[in-house]
Amino acid sequence: MGRIFVVGMGPGGLLDMTPRARKAIEDANLVVGYNTYINLIQDYFPDKQFIRSGMTREVERCRLVLEKALEGYNVALVSSGDSGIYGMAGIMLEVVNKSGSVVDVEVIPGITAASAAAAVLGAPLMHDFAVISLSDLMTPWELICKRIECAAQGDFVICLYNPKSKNRSDYINIAREIVLKYRDSKTPVGIVRNAGRPDQASVITTLEDMPDNEIDMFTVVLIGNSQTYTENGRMITPRGYDV
Amino acid sequence: MGRIFVVGMGPGGLLDMTPRARKAIEDANLVVGYNTYINLIQDYFPDKQFIRSGMTREVERCRLVLEKALEGYNVALVSSGDSGIYGMAGIMLEVVNKSGSVVDVEVIPGITAASAAAAVLGAPLMHDFAVISLSDLMTPWELICKRIECAAQGDFVICLYNPKSKNRSDYINIAREIVLKYRDSKTPVGIVRNAGRPDQASVITTLEDMPDNEIDMFTVVLIGNSQTYTENGRMITPRGYDV
Repeated sequence: MGRIFVVGMGPGGLLDMTPRARKAIEDANLVVGYNTYINLIQDYFPDKQFIRSGMTREVERCRLVLEKALEGYNVALVSSGDSGIYGMAGIMLEVVNKSGSVVDVEVIPGITAASAAAAVLGAPLMHDFAVISLSDLMTPWELICKRIECAAQGDFVICLYNPKSKNRSDYINIAREIVLKYRDSKTPVGIVRNAGRPDQASVITTLEDMPDNEIDMFTVVLIGNSQTYTENGRMITPRGYDV
Repeated sequence: MGRIFVVGMGPGGLLDMTPRARKAIEDANLVVGYNTYINLIQDYFPDKQFIRSGMTREVERCRLVLEKALEGYNVALVSSGDSGIYGMAGIMLEVVNKSGSVVDVEVIPGITAASAAAAVLGAPLMHDFAVISLSDLMTPWELICKRIECAAQGDFVICLYNPKSKNRSDYINIAREIVLKYRDSKTPVGIVRNAGRPDQASVITTLEDMPDNEIDMFTVVLIGNSQTYTENGRMITPRGYDV
């Protein structure tokens, strides 16, 4: 019986992929992943056999991985960022559990988008933070709104994943309005597109001016807490040290 | 003038350190860090010049780094985990800004303890989560409690950093009591000590039985949301897929 490695490949380039993740891919007989992720890494592993799958095919993908592992393949199931943060680790474990198989599943973490985006912006995550996905594919929008409200009340730095897609173009604006109930309009907001990738782009703005900036599904949005400030082009959440 | 790299080295071993982080350390003329972190990595970089500094010496450490950079050294300032999450990135930027120097500071992210711990436990971070430090060295305890309360209300998976030290042995119990106001006593809790290090240890328990387990300052505690469950020894927060 083969083994399954659920691999977080980080932003996508080899420089930000841990040796543990790279080795899992190199050692695998088969690498499975969403099209876009395979595109990011296939050139680094020219001799590898890949199976690509489409978006919203997550469960099928995991079933295929299990099937191949039961056939004897060591399979690497890849996600961008951290496989354990909104990644494939959970579904893979659920599919294996439901099947009653005893295949070994190892989760290999990677640099998540919050970390990659924060490094680009400066140091916005120096204090307590909340990570919230605005995708309502699997989560009721009311619950997402409640979480934004709770995070804003608690003065958490807020990191928004999946801030926008075609079907929910105004969610990010509603999220902004909820935060504005609790936070100053001058609160810094960092927007990073394709964090850690060659076409990376970022801007630091404020809650007030946030709507002037383009936000899409490749973007991560970091909203500062009440202490966050911008200086010399860097977004900084102070920890409280007297510098 | 030299450059400053604030390097997140991940849990500590080379397998989990990104090539970007490793290269920054290798290319540096000088590596500065807290004693414990230097101990973790010094054997990997035998020819490197290290400067060690004690705990609670963060500002001094950053001033030294700046001074050396101004003298022409390329300096790597290392933290475990992600340098951008409760790490040295913020203080370093603040010290440089305050000095009025124009030294270039690059932040290099690493695998943070939440990611490393989650991978050990299974897949607890598949949904929205809040990261909270229980250290009151720089943060009023009342604010920490408020954040725990908000995170519990919002049904976030909760990841507690610095859950215990000599001077605040009961904080983790108070945190637990706050969460119990909103969450079932059977809610899974993962406790990981030295995540990603050779002496790693972990246990999956419940809010109810959490006090029976040892928690210290090398531990990260992950409290599940209302949907989190344990199966086959893994802690899983379902995303909502029909598997």
